[in-house]
Amino acid sequence: MERPALIQTVSAVRRRLAPERAAARTIGLVPTMGDLHEGHLSLIRRGRSDSDVLVVSDFVNPTQFGPGEDYRRYPRDLDRDAHICAQESVDVLFAPSDEEMYSESFSTYVVQETLTNKLCGASRPGHFRGVTTVVAKLFNIIQPDVSYWGQKDAQQVAVIKRMVKDLDFPVRVVVCPTVREPDGLAISSRNRYLSPPQRKDATSLYRALQKTKEIVASGETDSSRLLTEIRATIARAPSAKIDYAAIVHPETLQDVDNIDREALVAVAAWFGSARLIDNLLISPPDRPRK
Amino acid sequence: MERPALIQTVSAVRRRLAPERAAARTIGLVPTMGDLHEGHLSLIRRGRSDSDVLVVSDFVNPTQFGPGEDYRRYPRDLDRDAHICAQESVDVLFAPSDEEMYSESFSTYVVQETLTNKLCGASRPGHFRGVTTVVAKLFNIIQPDVSYWGQKDAQQVAVIKRMVKDLDFPVRVVVCPTVREPDGLAISSRNRYLSPPQRKDATSLYRALQKTKEIVASGETDSSRLLTEIRATIARAPSAKIDYAAIVHPETLQDVDNIDREALVAVAAWFGSARLIDNLLISPPDRPRK
Repeated sequence: MERPALIQTVSAVRRRLAPERAAARTIGLVPTMGDLHEGHLSLIRRGRSDSDVLVVSDFVNPTQFGPGEDYRRYPRDLDRDAHICAQESVDVLFAPSDEEMYSESFSTYVVQETLTNKLCGASRPGHFRGVTTVVAKLFNIIQPDVSYWGQKDAQQVAVIKRMVKDLDFPVRVVVCPTVREPDGLAISSRNRYLSPPQRKDATSLYRALQKTKEIVASGETDSSRLLTEIRATIARAPSAKIDYAAIVHPETLQDVDNIDREALVAVAAWFGSARLIDNLLISPPDRPRK
Repeated sequence: MERPALIQTVSAVRRRLAPERAAARTIGLVPTMGDLHEGHLSLIRRGRSDSDVLVVSDFVNPTQFGPGEDYRRYPRDLDRDAHICAQESVDVLFAPSDEEMYSESFSTYVVQETLTNKLCGASRPGHFRGVTTVVAKLFNIIQPDVSYWGQKDAQQVAVIKRMVKDLDFPVRVVVCPTVREPDGLAISSRNRYLSPPQRKDATSLYRALQKTKEIVASGETDSSRLLTEIRATIARAPSAKIDYAAIVHPETLQDVDNIDREALVAVAAWFGSARLIDNLLISPPDRPRK
């Protein structure tokens, strides 16, 4: 059979996977919105090495876009994605239509209540409700043993881990490091919205994060001072409009006043019409042992 | 191994069921809040005849009770339930603690939005959110092929069917007929809250439904006239306080003006401190063929 099998309905993908499950082969899922890039490839390669059967889902999920967001112009190229999946020996490319995923009377949502109204959730109300809902659906359709996620979407990772734990999904959540361009910009489908000057400015996110890491290593762990520095670094990029900069607990996403244990330093900013995010997990400075 | 195995943790029940699933044995689940009665027995017996492995869950789910409802006094007797399950050859009795099901940081809910604010949902805000959430958890923990439900809880049936469809749970929903006392009262754990006069009055629910069926058979299909009659019948019981009487579409739960296709006739009333519900599916009268 040629790989990947492109499957577009729920019933067909279930039929395809039932014998695999019956044979106790492990199933890995890389959930994507398509437009596969190096970030996705790192997940796919990890999944390929881990799983007997690797499924990539490719679905631009309408319920996670707010009114006025980039749902319509979000890049879509299924042929290109299928070609990439073939090169990576993906077994199944699951690319359902909107109608296949959301019937007219669709009316059941999965809602994570404590982690979703801050950071990206504050400027994208309803976004994470769409994410948790579609991921619950994908978990129920594919029934994977393992799922693969990018650290770039750190809040999404926290929300999905919480959902899996709270609702007892029998799915392991594996998180892979953020993949970056040579100049540090985190790879994202939305980078292609950037003009050349905005593209240059967008590196300010990673520069701010790297600088924070250095400052912390030198002994400054006070969050408010670090955040002032982050905002100043990003603000020096002419086209940047900061959405948020925050230093939080990686799981609870609660603000931390001081980096005295590993913290998530997360930023979001607009560059023209592109809203970009980035983050680093930063540990406190090594202290001399007593 | 003695049946049923009483299992109280998520990890233990998963270990118990993994080899069954690997051997492709079908798993049936009867979700209950314990206090097993003839209504549950009809589900258990159906499940026993259908499934290779039959699981009964026994969990008084705190999230589906509102403040001031009967969560604390809801009858609990695990030994008795285990004895009944043994008699019925149930394989696994899953009876987790509250802490096992809801961690302190629990914060993810399943919400069905269109069917849950009317009928019972109108007087029990949050009730169905608790139901859909715990059922999603039980489906993910047990991973049953089939689940068994009582028609007595008609709104719950509609909500669970909608949830299963919307979130693609790979679980069949089987609905069994309401089991009744000889005088017609639908069997419910809450019947034991009734004093002898209230117990007598409580038959008014079924009498009202039966009478409606007869009136419809005689040709009267106008919902408002039928509902007037239902309310009058229930009101004649001295202790009854009607919560609602409604004639609705069985799946959408939208009010119907006229019984021109099968409709759900549903009633709820208080008798003292017991809030009881009942319903009948009623078809339009036979019309002479042309």
